Amino acid sequence: MHDQNIYDNEVFFEGYRKLREQPSAANHLVEKPALFSLCPNLSGKRVLDLGCGYGENCREFLHLGASHVTGLDLSEKMLQIAKAENDAERISFVRMSMSDLSALDGTFDVVFSSLAVHYVEDFDQLLAQIHRLLADGGIFLFSQEHPFTTALRKGPRWSQNEDGTINHYNLSDYGIPGIRTTTWIVDGVIKYHRTFSDIVNALSTAGFQLEQMLEPLPGADILAQYPVYQKCYHKPDFLLVRAKKCCV
Amino acid sequence: MHDQNIYDNEVFFEGYRKLREQPSAANHLVEKPALFSLCPNLSGKRVLDLGCGYGENCREFLHLGASHVTGLDLSEKMLQIAKAENDAERISFVRMSMSDLSALDGTFDVVFSSLAVHYVEDFDQLLAQIHRLLADGGIFLFSQEHPFTTALRKGPRWSQNEDGTINHYNLSDYGIPGIRTTTWIVDGVIKYHRTFSDIVNALSTAGFQLEQMLEPLPGADILAQYPVYQKCYHKPDFLLVRAKKCCV
Repeated sequence: MHDQNIYDNEVFFEGYRKLREQPSAANHLVEKPALFSLCPNLSGKRVLDLGCGYGENCREFLHLGASHVTGLDLSEKMLQIAKAENDAERISFVRMSMSDLSALDGTFDVVFSSLAVHYVEDFDQLLAQIHRLLADGGIFLFSQEHPFTTALRKGPRWSQNEDGTINHYNLSDYGIPGIRTTTWIVDGVIKYHRTFSDIVNALSTAGFQLEQMLEPLPGADILAQYPVYQKCYHKPDFLLVRAKKCCV
Repeated sequence: MHDQNIYDNEVFFEGYRKLREQPSAANHLVEKPALFSLCPNLSGKRVLDLGCGYGENCREFLHLGASHVTGLDLSEKMLQIAKAENDAERISFVRMSMSDLSALDGTFDVVFSSLAVHYVEDFDQLLAQIHRLLADGGIFLFSQEHPFTTALRKGPRWSQNEDGTINHYNLSDYGIPGIRTTTWIVDGVIKYHRTFSDIVNALSTAGFQLEQMLEPLPGADILAQYPVYQKCYHKPDFLLVRAKKCCV
């Protein structure tokens, strides 16, 4: 079990903060709108946010009517910022690893997770815990790095034409699930690659019905401002899934 | 509506026949075993096979206990061979396009389709017809070319190292669904690209629960005999889906 806490690494943390604060970050432009487009009605709902980071989404869930939000993260630094910037009476922040939720109590109507499940090695166990924590008919809504992104064990990721435009994405090792040690801000960041069928079958086996899947792409307005995102039409950045708890 | 009947093109048909009869064909080695691994119990079941081709699978479904099998194909040439080689008392062959099944009567417990749905432009309409033809709780089991295969609008598909081994797959235009005019045996073969999320959402919207998804890969025994298939670990050849009819 790799209980990675890269977000408490000083260098990573500062680099990540700068990256996330850029208005051009794909998280803001593409992932977040897609996540909220799949959001069920939160009015009066108990919400759990796995890998809540700065807690921005926790606060947004309250605005959308949630009765209570629990934000969970492994990183002490993240939770300090969350408490300083996004605390509220009906939000609780909990420090715990997503890799083992067995100590978490409570029942939730909606479980969210934004760009965190690819850090978890044992997806089956995570889904079993989420299933346990959800009320009947409850929703699990998550985003993750796209499987084409997590697949690679070596670079370069993109092939360019002579004029600098992207020609294609260099897809390799998609069919080999498992650990990936990558460089992202710092060396040695550990993620886990799962294929589409791995993800779909794990959800089905854990007792979830897959309701909707998105591989969101930047629209014309975003492309006009940031032409670099044209390459996402070769290889999307994100995968989002909304699944409903059903029988096991 | 493109009601393509490429299988009645003489040149295509002969080329296809030679290709399929090779023992090294990926259909025999990878797709067919994967399809039958997902097959529900057929004992006493009414089966429909969409794009039945030579009718080999129809006969196999009878052996697996089906009470009756309807094999449907648009190609007169294919159906001639099917009737000559795989006819049986409890098999009916029907000439009809998968693009419009509205004239087809009957109720089926299982609908199969092997490597044919990527020829159909309107997937939503196809799924609506299959939903209509299935009994409650009935199963739709299909294989298709992998979305990484259908994505490309230009070649080359693979990047090789200097020693001739495959380095990666040149993935492009994955995020742009729609028509693809490709060369496969002959020029001008028309297929339709759909992303994973297109496929998953179409099934969900049509009233199917996705039970299992496979992107099958050749095992060690196949690789030992045909090392060329190592490249499938970068990019699988096939996608298979088993879905159950539920409420709309």
